[in-house]
This record gives sequence, C-alpha cells and structure tokens, in this order.
Amino acid sequence: MSPTIAILAPGAMGSAVARRLSDHGARVLTSLRGRSEATLKRAADAGMVGAEDDAIAAADIILSIVPPGEAVALAERLAALIVKRDKKPVVVDCNAVNVDTVLRIEEIIGSAQAPFVDAGIIGFPPQRGGKSPAFYMAGEHAKDVTVLRDLGLDVRIVEGPVGAASALKMAYAGINKGLAGLGSAMVLAATKAGAADALRAELALSQPAMLAKLEVALPDMIPKAYRWVAEMREISGFLGPDHPASQIYEGFARWFEHLAEDAKGEGADTELLRAFAAKGGKKG
Amino acid sequence: MSPTIAILAPGAMGSAVARRLSDHGARVLTSLRGRSEATLKRAADAGMVGAEDDAIAAADIILSIVPPGEAVALAERLAALIVKRDKKPVVVDCNAVNVDTVLRIEEIIGSAQAPFVDAGIIGFPPQRGGKSPAFYMAGEHAKDVTVLRDLGLDVRIVEGPVGAASALKMAYAGINKGLAGLGSAMVLAATKAGAADALRAELALSQPAMLAKLEVALPDMIPKAYRWVAEMREISGFLGPDHPASQIYEGFARWFEHLAEDAKGEGADTELLRAFAAKGGKKG
Repeated sequence: MSPTIAILAPGAMGSAVARRLSDHGARVLTSLRGRSEATLKRAADAGMVGAEDDAIAAADIILSIVPPGEAVALAERLAALIVKRDKKPVVVDCNAVNVDTVLRIEEIIGSAQAPFVDAGIIGFPPQRGGKSPAFYMAGEHAKDVTVLRDLGLDVRIVEGPVGAASALKMAYAGINKGLAGLGSAMVLAATKAGAADALRAELALSQPAMLAKLEVALPDMIPKAYRWVAEMREISGFLGPDHPASQIYEGFARWFEHLAEDAKGEGADTELLRAFAAKGGKKG
Repeated sequence: MSPTIAILAPGAMGSAVARRLSDHGARVLTSLRGRSEATLKRAADAGMVGAEDDAIAAADIILSIVPPGEAVALAERLAALIVKRDKKPVVVDCNAVNVDTVLRIEEIIGSAQAPFVDAGIIGFPPQRGGKSPAFYMAGEHAKDVTVLRDLGLDVRIVEGPVGAASALKMAYAGINKGLAGLGSAMVLAATKAGAADALRAELALSQPAMLAKLEVALPDMIPKAYRWVAEMREISGFLGPDHPASQIYEGFARWFEHLAEDAKGEGADTELLRAFAAKGGKKG
C-alpha cells in the first residue's frame, strides 16, 4: 500500500512536491485551517487532501517545507501532536535552515520520540513531467524515507549526521546566491562608472562561463531577492556570529533587501542589471 | 626613437612589465634609492636602469605600479618632480584603486600640468614569451600611450572618463576574488559539517563549471589572500561607505585576513581548502 505523506505547508514548493507524490499514487495530506482561498485552490490542484491535526500526525512521513523563520514553530506544533501517538511518523525537515537550527528541531521532534531526518532541497519545484529537485537527506533515519524515490522524488543520501544535508544546502546556496549578489553589485557599480561594456568584453574574453552564468543569474535573482534576505541571514548563522566570514552574508542580506526594495519601487538598479544581462542575448 | 618609460616601483608586476618593455627596445628607468638587495637584483634582471628623480621626471611615460595604499603618495612625489619641468611626461596610474582615489590622483598630477591616464591591469605579470595582461586605459590621454602596444603590452582603450578603467578593475576583481572568498567560506563550512563530498557531487552534477573554477581559484587564492585584504577594502570604498553592498567587501577583507593568518600559522583551514580542490585532480 502506498504511504500517506503529510506536507506542511502547501506553498509553491510544498504543493509542487505534493503533486509529484500524488501523481505517483501517494495520499498527500495537508493542513488547510485558516488558509486563504488561493492556498485552498493550490492545494486542491496539487491533489492534496485537507486534514485535521490528528490525521496529519498519523501519516507515515511528514515533510516540513516552510520559510526558514517558521521551521522551529512548525516542529513544536508537530511534536505536540505526535507525542500523544503510539505509531510515530518520520519527520523530515526540508527547510533552508542552518545546522544549529536543524539540531534544535531534531531535539524538538526527538522529545516526541519520532524519528527525524535532516533534508535540504536543491533545485526548483518539480513541474509535471519535469525532473525533481534533489532532496539531500542526512541522519540515521534517512534510509527510512527512501520510499519517496518510488514516488518520484530525487532522494540522495548524504553520508553524515543530522545537519550535513542542511550544511550542504547552506553551502550550495551560499555559493550560487552569493555569486548573484556580488555579480549584481559589481555589474551595477561598473555600469554607473561607465565601464559596463568593458567589463562585459573582458569577461567574454577571460571568463566566458562566468559571463554566461551572470546573464542567467542576475535577472533570475531579481524577483527572488526578497526571499533571499532571510536565507542569507541563515547562512550567516550557519557560519556563526564570531566567524570571520559571517559579515559577508550579513552584507548579502542587506544588498538583497536593497534590490528587493528597488524592484518593488522605481526599479532603477534592477533595470540596469536586466540591461547588462540582455546584451548577451542580442549577440545570439 | 624608442620612448623612455619610467616604472615605479620595481615590484613583481612592475619589473615583469619592465622586462617586456626593455625586450621590445624601450629604455626603462626606475628609482632604486634605499631599496633592498633583492629589489636591486630584480630590477637589473628586468633590464631596468636605476635613475635619479630628475631623469625619471624627464621620461616620456611614467607607469605607477604600487600597492593600492601607496598610489596617492607616489602621485604627490611625481607631481613635485614634474611641476618644475617644461616637457611633461604622461603619468599612468595602473593601481588597483577605487574611482574616488584615481580622481584624486588625477587632480594631483593635473596640478603639475601633466597629462594623466587611468589604467587597470587585469591578468598576471607577463612572463618572457608569454602573453601580456590587459592594460585597460581610460581618459582623454589614453590614446597618447598606445605606443606601449608596440612595446609588447596589451593596451585596451575603455571608452569613458578617468575612473572607468579603475572601475572595470574593481568590478572584475570584485567578481573573481569575491567568488574565491565566498567559495572558500562555504567549502570550509561544508567540510566542517561533514558535507564536503556531497557539495562536490552536487556541484559536479548541476554546476560543473563552478566546481572547475573553485578547484583552480581556491589554492591560487591562499598565497595571495594577504594582498587581497587591502584590495577588498578598495572595492568597498569603490561602492562607497553608505552603499548597501559595501559590507560584503568589508566582510571579504576580514575573511582574507583570516585565511592569510591561517596560512602563515597552523594552516588548518587552508589545508582543508587544498584538500577539497585536490579531490578533483584525482579523478582525472
């Protein structure tokens, strides 16, 4: 019999994962109490079934997929539900949280005697017929959820303790989103100093792969910058407050905050970034 | 007749450029008063001729190639020499300084009524028989030094005012050295959390060009980190103290400071970086 999976919450990633699982025959529950009409519709479209807390706690696997700032509160809510039950679901934290946070979540879930898996998602929400993002899983119970492979998810075991999958997610995001951060800062500064064309020409000659990456990464970043602010702060926390590199990621948080505000407002800076990226397309 | 070029100072870049110019028939002067035995030897090996200040001020072109922190003081020294002369040399500031600094240097050289060129060097010191780094030149007098092309330098004119070449240099360094900075921070943090192999595997799958770049950039960065501290502060100054991204580059300065100290001391962190980079080589 196909397992019952609960996914909290039915956001963009959570509902796309639910769609993939339900397409593969899983029963996917979620919590819909107090959610907006738009969320109810998105959940229904994804084949998710609204369920009360007791039913969610009775699932075989619970996937926590929420914004980083909500991960601990959701774990506390789940632990309170699970602690009363004899049969415990495996709880998988899939959030972009730092290692300290995921260890705290492991402790919270452990207090309800439920098995816990540390997961990190790398890639975009799965589209119907498209490929799954990578679900990196770490901790001794990671092998207990490999059934998700049969349900269409790209599950990859990280050999390492709880925290290793979140560390991987932080490091990967820290490299890729960090590059978008410093690339946007430098492209803008060069543009304002009249050196954009020269920068483009030099990159095309000496670093063509870097130029190609920036041409994709800069416009892709603009609508996501507001979400990346919190993720950059998680990465700063991943390094730790006294770490000599944590200031870099505090700086990225501030920079993405500026770009997000610019994009919402007059868009002067984001327009210059789009212009730099678009020049590559014109050649082709 | 081949022009007389003065290069201050005969450091690693300055002497390599001198070697290239003297190999092409230029007479290359430098100032050797009070310099170490090692510097005297390096200058002689590069075909440089030690000269008094008056002779240096009589050169056709003066190239300023010094650490960023010394650029303004050298400009003041040159201006004091040049102001007394009827025939003025073209003064080219080739240093990794920010736009404000190069505008200040332009003013200093202008006070001696000498033509001024803003230049930025991108690439490694030229080796005998090897290619020249790119010498980007900006400002109305950039065309006055294109004779350097006939002397073996890769001179490229940036269409833009004084400051555009330095802006290009800052932006290019800010992207490349910044990537080495965040790559090293994230690789180290992932390694310490037991996720280095997973990070390498994910990069190999989804970002092979990025992995290849990090494998070269991380070990290359280690012996240079101490020099990059000041350059990161120049880039922060290039953005300006109130710029929302300047904190990123203050963070890089602090991080490179840490790596430079680590490399001089026990080398625990730099060893982990070398180990990550070396794993790629083992496959080939």
